Amino acid sequence: MEKVTVNASRTYDILIGEHLLDTAGERIRAAAGGGAALVVTDDTVDRLYGEKLVSSLRRSGYRVEKFVIPPGEASKNTENFLGILNFLAEKHFTRSDVVAALGGGVVGDLAGFAAACFHRGMTFVQLPTTLLAAVDSSVGGKTAVDLPAGKNLIGAFYQPALVICDIRTLDTLSEEIFRDGCAEVIKYAIIADRELFMDLKQPVRPQLEKIITRCVSIKRDIVARDEFDTGVRQLLNFGHTVGHAVEACSDFAVSHGSGVAIGMAAESRAAAQRGFCDALCLNEIVSLLRLYGFSLDCPYSAEALCEKALSDKKRRGDAITLVVPREIGQAELLTVPVGELLSFFRSGR
Amino acid sequence: MEKVTVNASRTYDILIGEHLLDTAGERIRAAAGGGAALVVTDDTVDRLYGEKLVSSLRRSGYRVEKFVIPPGEASKNTENFLGILNFLAEKHFTRSDVVAALGGGVVGDLAGFAAACFHRGMTFVQLPTTLLAAVDSSVGGKTAVDLPAGKNLIGAFYQPALVICDIRTLDTLSEEIFRDGCAEVIKYAIIADRELFMDLKQPVRPQLEKIITRCVSIKRDIVARDEFDTGVRQLLNFGHTVGHAVEACSDFAVSHGSGVAIGMAAESRAAAQRGFCDALCLNEIVSLLRLYGFSLDCPYSAEALCEKALSDKKRRGDAITLVVPREIGQAELLTVPVGELLSFFRSGR
Repeated sequence: MEKVTVNASRTYDILIGEHLLDTAGERIRAAAGGGAALVVTDDTVDRLYGEKLVSSLRRSGYRVEKFVIPPGEASKNTENFLGILNFLAEKHFTRSDVVAALGGGVVGDLAGFAAACFHRGMTFVQLPTTLLAAVDSSVGGKTAVDLPAGKNLIGAFYQPALVICDIRTLDTLSEEIFRDGCAEVIKYAIIADRELFMDLKQPVRPQLEKIITRCVSIKRDIVARDEFDTGVRQLLNFGHTVGHAVEACSDFAVSHGSGVAIGMAAESRAAAQRGFCDALCLNEIVSLLRLYGFSLDCPYSAEALCEKALSDKKRRGDAITLVVPREIGQAELLTVPVGELLSFFRSGR
Repeated sequence: MEKVTVNASRTYDILIGEHLLDTAGERIRAAAGGGAALVVTDDTVDRLYGEKLVSSLRRSGYRVEKFVIPPGEASKNTENFLGILNFLAEKHFTRSDVVAALGGGVVGDLAGFAAACFHRGMTFVQLPTTLLAAVDSSVGGKTAVDLPAGKNLIGAFYQPALVICDIRTLDTLSEEIFRDGCAEVIKYAIIADRELFMDLKQPVRPQLEKIITRCVSIKRDIVARDEFDTGVRQLLNFGHTVGHAVEACSDFAVSHGSGVAIGMAAESRAAAQRGFCDALCLNEIVSLLRLYGFSLDCPYSAEALCEKALSDKKRRGDAITLVVPREIGQAELLTVPVGELLSFFRSGR
């Protein structure tokens, strides 16, 4: 088992290893205390791992309740958000009780935002069961819910008391969903870790514990420098300005990982054209993304993408901050006026 | 004009004085910046002061939108909360834009919680127009919304960028609503300021600027020591454990101030009976509350109050923290097991 300790506004551990669900109850009790636990999960994950977590929590003395949502981004809505909050109130949960998110990013974002709001913040524990959640959404304290007008438009910065990543739960992921997480892993390699980039040329599954630990450590270090996302944390948005726009243009038929892969390719092309990185760097990025089977053709016009990007919350007033790679393992922020975004998007195509 | 500077997780000023609404726009621009401003207010306040604030904001270059709710606690619901969030999204507000709460505690709590959640936190400015909001809810960063199961069950700790208290807006308050705020003023005097207690034996209105400044300074000092309400901040709950229970028992027909007045009398009686304060102290408290016209008879049984108090979020697991006066100007926390609460409530009757 690997352990990464995060020092944000709260200090907490991220545990990464095999069969950790079996001992989750005692680990949560030791880190978080509390008398009752609400497990938030989705139908798919519940069938596979729900009972394992619930019984572990019960063995550690928790009164356990469960709130199960349908799988998929559509569940990250205000109805489920209020549903969880009303459920917590009806079941007389207090601030010292625990919300445990068992699942991928949707479950973690939704449950985390509910935990942040209930009684102005109750104990929150993440148990990511997808690669994407393990390396990205479960680390750093961003929680969110979608509005009809867009994804992640409301939320809170709220740190968990503990993150438990049982890598055995990743065995049951479909190749498609596993690959989605690989896009974020590749992102970490490009912005911060040349050695990881090289490792990724070999199959990921046998290296999971090491790779997740590496990604989580990178994110931890970046978030520690900028918990509230006003500076260097924006490096983590590499590929996401275009990526989110692609997702939005497709009405979210394109998955997050596929969108970010297209985004990383596009933003790298634009960066290379402006001289931020050389052709070799661009070529390495595109080749690795292709090795993972990502299609890098963007089916939308620069104009359409630009319109979506301007309603994104990464915009601040009249400027938008982009991320450009300098070489493999190093990237920097580039703030451009809103008026120049279209030409940037055009050069990425 | 008086200025109180608060050093919480964010540093901000509270301005207290006459006719400050006329220059609110330029003050908000200087403290908060941003391109657009959403004014959240209620129908009553809007009719009296809405235009004054909107035109001041426009003069300072803001694009101004307005979201108006019906007056009263019933508006502090999740429907209006989501209504504000969707409105902000539809009007393309960003994190650097401003939400300005013009009104009493309901408006401030609701607008503040929405500002805390939109894009995980946008700029928030409070313009309290009731005495209660001026001395209590606009200071300290607690925001909240009610659930069907209870008041203030969800919310965030979220500090404003600026608080502007134009005391002329308090001229239009009814005597009943003004008195409601006086209950909180008396609370500050009892827990922290003997001199203020003496001043309160004279009429409040001619001393408003001084009294509000004093109350806000007391709250500022307490909140600075305990922003997230895990310790000394609970002193501010004096009168509120019983008070909230009285409000809840009456289905909120009893106002907050009247409930807190009953609560302060009851909690002081229980404290005196247990020897925390002497009979003279209790007598002084009860006399001052009567001078302000508060009826101190509690129409509910200790059992009924106790049941409500146990579903209150001030409870933590199996214990509840009460506040007991030691003498006028000094109080302390008393944590009792849930099982002893009934006998405490009985001795307060």
